[in-house]
Amino acid sequence: MTPAVPALAERIRRAGEVAASHDVEVLLLTPGTDLRYLLGYGGASHERLTCLVLPAAGHLAPPAIVVPKLEAPGLAALPLAELGVEVLTWTDGEDPYRLVSDLAGGPTRMAVADSMPASHVFGLRDVFPDVAQTLAGPVLRELRMRKDAGEVAQLRAAGAAIDRVHARMAEFLMVGRTEAEVGEAITAAILDEGHTEAAFVVVGSGPHGASPHHDVSGRVIERGDVVVVDIGGPLPGGYNSDSTRTYAVGGEPPATIREAYAVLQDAQERSVAAVRPGVTAESVDTAAREPITEAGLGKNFVHRTGHGIGLDVHEEPYIVGGNPILLEPGMAFSVEPGVYLEGEWGARIEDIVVVTADGCERLNTRPRDLVVLPG
Amino acid sequence: MTPAVPALAERIRRAGEVAASHDVEVLLLTPGTDLRYLLGYGGASHERLTCLVLPAAGHLAPPAIVVPKLEAPGLAALPLAELGVEVLTWTDGEDPYRLVSDLAGGPTRMAVADSMPASHVFGLRDVFPDVAQTLAGPVLRELRMRKDAGEVAQLRAAGAAIDRVHARMAEFLMVGRTEAEVGEAITAAILDEGHTEAAFVVVGSGPHGASPHHDVSGRVIERGDVVVVDIGGPLPGGYNSDSTRTYAVGGEPPATIREAYAVLQDAQERSVAAVRPGVTAESVDTAAREPITEAGLGKNFVHRTGHGIGLDVHEEPYIVGGNPILLEPGMAFSVEPGVYLEGEWGARIEDIVVVTADGCERLNTRPRDLVVLPG
Repeated sequence: MTPAVPALAERIRRAGEVAASHDVEVLLLTPGTDLRYLLGYGGASHERLTCLVLPAAGHLAPPAIVVPKLEAPGLAALPLAELGVEVLTWTDGEDPYRLVSDLAGGPTRMAVADSMPASHVFGLRDVFPDVAQTLAGPVLRELRMRKDAGEVAQLRAAGAAIDRVHARMAEFLMVGRTEAEVGEAITAAILDEGHTEAAFVVVGSGPHGASPHHDVSGRVIERGDVVVVDIGGPLPGGYNSDSTRTYAVGGEPPATIREAYAVLQDAQERSVAAVRPGVTAESVDTAAREPITEAGLGKNFVHRTGHGIGLDVHEEPYIVGGNPILLEPGMAFSVEPGVYLEGEWGARIEDIVVVTADGCERLNTRPRDLVVLPG
Repeated sequence: MTPAVPALAERIRRAGEVAASHDVEVLLLTPGTDLRYLLGYGGASHERLTCLVLPAAGHLAPPAIVVPKLEAPGLAALPLAELGVEVLTWTDGEDPYRLVSDLAGGPTRMAVADSMPASHVFGLRDVFPDVAQTLAGPVLRELRMRKDAGEVAQLRAAGAAIDRVHARMAEFLMVGRTEAEVGEAITAAILDEGHTEAAFVVVGSGPHGASPHHDVSGRVIERGDVVVVDIGGPLPGGYNSDSTRTYAVGGEPPATIREAYAVLQDAQERSVAAVRPGVTAESVDTAAREPITEAGLGKNFVHRTGHGIGLDVHEEPYIVGGNPILLEPGMAFSVEPGVYLEGEWGARIEDIVVVTADGCERLNTRPRDLVVLPG
């Protein structure tokens, strides 16, 4: 699942180039998905500093990784020598920030991983007191936002895996079970279907469906409930699934809900249909928002239309008003409008799509109607 | 499991007082264990800002939490009104950092959660361009380092839970299984015994035992292997277990290993015996290190003796050379010396202890000898 050495080498080379074009002299990346993208290894994140020091193109120092001595064996399987990445270890009591500053020389502008904890940000600030710190995200996103064929294949496999879980929903979601019990059964299925973790399991039944980021609760599923099920997690290669379907349990809901759902389904279709190279991220959001607003439900669609997905569940590009980024082939993101009636019910439909040469490919293909389960 | 309202109110009040004594005017806490300690709710950590704004004592503004509108329902169950914590929501497209700066007024010195991601650190820096940013850890640790009776009870329950897993080790660890298979069985047992997650499962067999932070691999357990098993995770209340035992599988190891192990066991006993109020953290490290060094194995003990534990698996106080902190009743930490023979074998013995009025209580009580499993 880890990319081959030439692919990683190319990513490292391009990260250095993009850094240079952003006027960044050195990238400092602590454990997380940026590190995993470049080395095929996310690192162990804790209070001890692990940091990839990646100079921008044109700077002479080779890349190096600073790592606690007791973590060093975990790097043994990585092709660091082939990638030209030096390894420097430190032991408890030594100052790892000093090691980084020795490696990085005297830059005037450094960029740190968006996820770097403040403790390390300030540790680095103290050894580079006159250096402007910026985020590495804008550099890394230039690479990570455009998925290559191998990454798309992994996202496709993740989409198929979570679709298999949704296909089995009648086994899990039934009258008389609590949301938490349903969630446990779904979690087991997410693992069964090849994920390494159930990163999130939202079972929002009845009024809980109106809370977009509800997870699960002790509420018992009742006949007639509309239930939002938003689930996903990473496959072993690290790429994530994320798909939402809305179910009616034990019978058709009333006409008012069916009508609002039809508006939502139309909005999701129109938004997916709007995805193609050259259009803005904002325009995809607008395509979902307009029909919902026209139906008088605009205030009930309380979030952006989508988020990029890859090694992170949420990453660039964000499908949100005000985002002028132009879509390109290989960009992967969710299209997930929702309507939420506080205290009553909610619904959301979410597919992951990948931009193709002339439109997009949906990675989730389960029926998008309000599926009625026997209950 | 969540502390009662008066206990949380007292924590919030004391955090404000300690902040003032540290010359910090406002604490800014994003999702994580500091937030959980103060509110009984850790928050959802992602790219959308959730932030508790907690003014130091003497500042007039009441505490407030800034939260994405779609996360707000997750706060409904919290006693925020009773705690006097205002809730401010924001929606996609708004600037949440501006909300924080409106709340915090014009401080000259703010402290941010140690775990706050750089993206939020810099977002706050941009709206408070002239404000010195420091870490909130030194403030929060003054509170979190000294566990109250309720916290000790939860750590004790966590210790008992992980001891039950070690007690069943003969069911999991046997000749012919891979480390990964053993790890899977242990993970299931960790969950069975009441943990919400197996936060770490180290099965370091044979030469892998020499890598202190090894996790698991495809290596097959062989007769005669010495195996380091370091396991733990949180109970539902959030407090963690962490205990290491070293096993010999299928028979006694050779005398050289048994002799080195006896040195290690003696070092762990002496280190635990050194724990009492008023001694330095460093002195506990020294008590473990001296006998190992005297036996000529000093260079094989490559890490500090221990780390504090609570809502985080690793927190203050660290039991390490150079740490002058004086131990006090209620401090909880690991005592876990190890010896590592690179390419050959390793061993470690780890108990969590809590400082009492005149010594300490061990929260792990499984036998500390090199336990021989049938294999």
